[in-house]
Amino acid sequence: MASSLIRGRYLLSPASGGETTALTDGAVYQEDGVIREVGSWEDLRGRYQPDEELGGPGYAIIPGLVNSHHHGRGVTTLQMGTCDDCLELWILDGWGRRPYDHYLMTLYTALNMLESGTTTVMYNHPQMATATLREDVDAVLRGFRDAGMRVAFSSYFRNQNRVVYAADQDFLSGLPSDLGESVNRHLAATDMTDDEYFAFFAETYDRYNSDPSGKLRVLLSPSNVQWNSDEFLQRTREAALRYNTPIHMHLVESNYQKAFGLRTWGKTPVEHLADLEFLGPELSCAHAVWLTERDIDLLAGAGATVCHNASSNLRLKNGIAPVNPMLARGLNVAMGTDSTAINDDDDLLQEMRLVSRLHRQPGIGAPAITSEQVLAMATANAAAPTGFAGEIGVLEPGRRADMLLVRLSDLEDPYLEPDLPPLEAVLGRAKSRDIAAVIVDGEVLTRDGSHQRVDKDEIRRELREQLSRPAEPQTLETRRMAARLRPYAEEFYRAWADESGGPPTGAPHYVYNSRT
Amino acid sequence: MASSLIRGRYLLSPASGGETTALTDGAVYQEDGVIREVGSWEDLRGRYQPDEELGGPGYAIIPGLVNSHHHGRGVTTLQMGTCDDCLELWILDGWGRRPYDHYLMTLYTALNMLESGTTTVMYNHPQMATATLREDVDAVLRGFRDAGMRVAFSSYFRNQNRVVYAADQDFLSGLPSDLGESVNRHLAATDMTDDEYFAFFAETYDRYNSDPSGKLRVLLSPSNVQWNSDEFLQRTREAALRYNTPIHMHLVESNYQKAFGLRTWGKTPVEHLADLEFLGPELSCAHAVWLTERDIDLLAGAGATVCHNASSNLRLKNGIAPVNPMLARGLNVAMGTDSTAINDDDDLLQEMRLVSRLHRQPGIGAPAITSEQVLAMATANAAAPTGFAGEIGVLEPGRRADMLLVRLSDLEDPYLEPDLPPLEAVLGRAKSRDIAAVIVDGEVLTRDGSHQRVDKDEIRRELREQLSRPAEPQTLETRRMAARLRPYAEEFYRAWADESGGPPTGAPHYVYNSRT
Repeated sequence: MASSLIRGRYLLSPASGGETTALTDGAVYQEDGVIREVGSWEDLRGRYQPDEELGGPGYAIIPGLVNSHHHGRGVTTLQMGTCDDCLELWILDGWGRRPYDHYLMTLYTALNMLESGTTTVMYNHPQMATATLREDVDAVLRGFRDAGMRVAFSSYFRNQNRVVYAADQDFLSGLPSDLGESVNRHLAATDMTDDEYFAFFAETYDRYNSDPSGKLRVLLSPSNVQWNSDEFLQRTREAALRYNTPIHMHLVESNYQKAFGLRTWGKTPVEHLADLEFLGPELSCAHAVWLTERDIDLLAGAGATVCHNASSNLRLKNGIAPVNPMLARGLNVAMGTDSTAINDDDDLLQEMRLVSRLHRQPGIGAPAITSEQVLAMATANAAAPTGFAGEIGVLEPGRRADMLLVRLSDLEDPYLEPDLPPLEAVLGRAKSRDIAAVIVDGEVLTRDGSHQRVDKDEIRRELREQLSRPAEPQTLETRRMAARLRPYAEEFYRAWADESGGPPTGAPHYVYNSRT
Repeated sequence: MASSLIRGRYLLSPASGGETTALTDGAVYQEDGVIREVGSWEDLRGRYQPDEELGGPGYAIIPGLVNSHHHGRGVTTLQMGTCDDCLELWILDGWGRRPYDHYLMTLYTALNMLESGTTTVMYNHPQMATATLREDVDAVLRGFRDAGMRVAFSSYFRNQNRVVYAADQDFLSGLPSDLGESVNRHLAATDMTDDEYFAFFAETYDRYNSDPSGKLRVLLSPSNVQWNSDEFLQRTREAALRYNTPIHMHLVESNYQKAFGLRTWGKTPVEHLADLEFLGPELSCAHAVWLTERDIDLLAGAGATVCHNASSNLRLKNGIAPVNPMLARGLNVAMGTDSTAINDDDDLLQEMRLVSRLHRQPGIGAPAITSEQVLAMATANAAAPTGFAGEIGVLEPGRRADMLLVRLSDLEDPYLEPDLPPLEAVLGRAKSRDIAAVIVDGEVLTRDGSHQRVDKDEIRRELREQLSRPAEPQTLETRRMAARLRPYAEEFYRAWADESGGPPTGAPHYVYNSRT
């Protein structure tokens, strides 16, 4: 292991108290992957003899970014042929996507994410029968390990309402019998009992959570309230407390999911989770677009986290999560791309900019998210929900040395007003091509977009070769089945809609235009 | 002059009837800057002997993009030190921006826009006293001419309410007298009478509208209803009909501008314009965020155009324009960056993607903008409002040969499902780095990001040198004045706000989240 002194004209980091540290000509001194000191470069260079010096006055230093909701799929759903659509239909369309080599795909995905500054990812794996799942998870974690990326791993679980938001057998019994049987067979491939899920979690946790790299955490993941029985949710919470590990789940991603709660329990999904005493600081919820004011208070009061996925929420017709009221009420908000970013490329720096732009409510006195808040969402706020509390997200002594060097030359060419706050320049203008170094545990993984550990061209070549083979007959059959199924699902949800085309809504958090 | 045959694996263009042309292995044959034929490459190559062959099976061909609302400023307002804010305050902050060389700035801006595929720009120049304006406009048009870009030029005019949305002297009389006097002096520098405006328009029109390049149009531009007297608006319309030239203006960019109409005339600004018989097919309105349903019908009925600026509307706290209802009611919608794009770089390809993502209303039955509509907004729909009706925006015989070659290799690496519609792949994934050639009038202006006519490094170097000089004493004084003025403006608008922090609104067109 080794030491380095990393210098930046600006050092920009959330601070533990919710403030932002902004040093001019600052530096980080790290030894063996741990930050020993952060301060003035002039001071630190006089007191340390690092093995390596990085950065300089042409760079800004920011913490490594955390993509806090992700499903792999660096070859995107769009590339695999699934066009964006309303979430509930898009999921069914996705049944017909081609299978792929999980090791290669994960490595490729991780390299893409590193290029745009992501150093830690909250990765959520799809459900499979245990034997397949074990093999896939080993391949995935080998991929992340070889890339050098920090990972909060979970594999999600659904034990009900897997086709539409109604009991599987009820819905399937309304289909033509051959179609119902095909769908049943398709579901059977991912069948897993609750016991099997927890056994697999325990096995994965024991195997990986204390990985000597220190870069792995294993989390629990009920997929979403409409997809999990109350009993499963309660067992999940018990397991989370017993293992002292976070829970990551989807929550009110769509208005249909909220409507499911109102129709099933006469209350919102969050209220239902509160009744189950499921809410706590170990919980992070991806999406959370359709939170009511009361839901926000319940989550904030419990110390839970929301993982905001701005691009995905737009692309899959789910809306815009009310991030400003969440922040105003003290709810912890992180952010991710959900493998469905605005440019279809998992670029978290671009996603930060979208988030910066999206939450600017009209009117001088109306809330607008700040750059400090956006930086914290992509870094500090993601530490606890990923299971790396106190270890990542903030540049301060004792934390892991995960950070980015951002080249300033393109940001300030041909001019940048010297009075402009540097964080505004970086968040407003930096692109992934400006990331000069991506550092995890003190190790430079990516330098000027070039990967130091892995030959990306070789990975790409292998993926290209594998995917150039004709689609498997099984895949084509599943596609035909999904296409036949789709109109029945549309019809199912049409019964829930009002004249807006989706389930009824109340008054919005954000008013961005006006009909009258 | 010369001929060329431009070949693409896909040729994607709006067609005149509102449909999209999508050819596989298509080609465009152009002679002397005019498209002679569009069709199958196999067929065209047999029938023409072009001087040059461009493209090939690794490319898609799309029409050159039209940025239909722009103010120059390639060194952005952010780079110049103005942070994003609510439009009305941001305008005042901008008073203190440094002056610059209009020729260099325009050339720099045009090169940036070319790199991301913009071939035509609707450029709107700020008001100045005639002598200065004449000099600036000559410099600007020389810049665009040297870049080779097609331009719809207008210089905007304001003759009232230039500080806040109230009579200048009423507002200034409420300021401390020294501040009032400074502001008055600042306004005087841009003073121009209505007669002077029309005289300058006539002079500019005569000088440039029939420029032998064929690349210039001169338009009329009242700045916005709250900034122009009814008499000026009526004279503008008369001039537009007399000169047969379009009118370009801002309209209900902010909810304050709508509120100004309700407070002043008891009706919306669009209703007021309808009463003045100002609406017609020669009118294009930038922003139009706060259109009511009735406003949309009025504009659609008149055959007017809206120029949508999604990024700018978010950045300046103006909201999201109701583009889906506009399209549903047959209103012509174009798009621009307003020099305030999401990534602060005038990238219209990125802006198209933002527009694609932003207008996806929640619910299976709710409207979502299509890729065909977004392509038309950035191309065909902008032809008439820029004064190039029938000349640009569509790849068909008789139109100017303005088009892009988009390299497909990165879009489909390591895989792209062959069944995916090519337009979804291009709009969903192409970045400016994938633009292999930018062609205007058959001339390749930019090849793989490298400019064929102009040395951008040299332009950058000159701008860098000019802007590296200390800010002018006059600029610093204006900054101090604007900073003193700001709280008075805030107080003025606070009186218009309800509990939302801005003026009251009715029910929104888009509901993206829900409080209850």
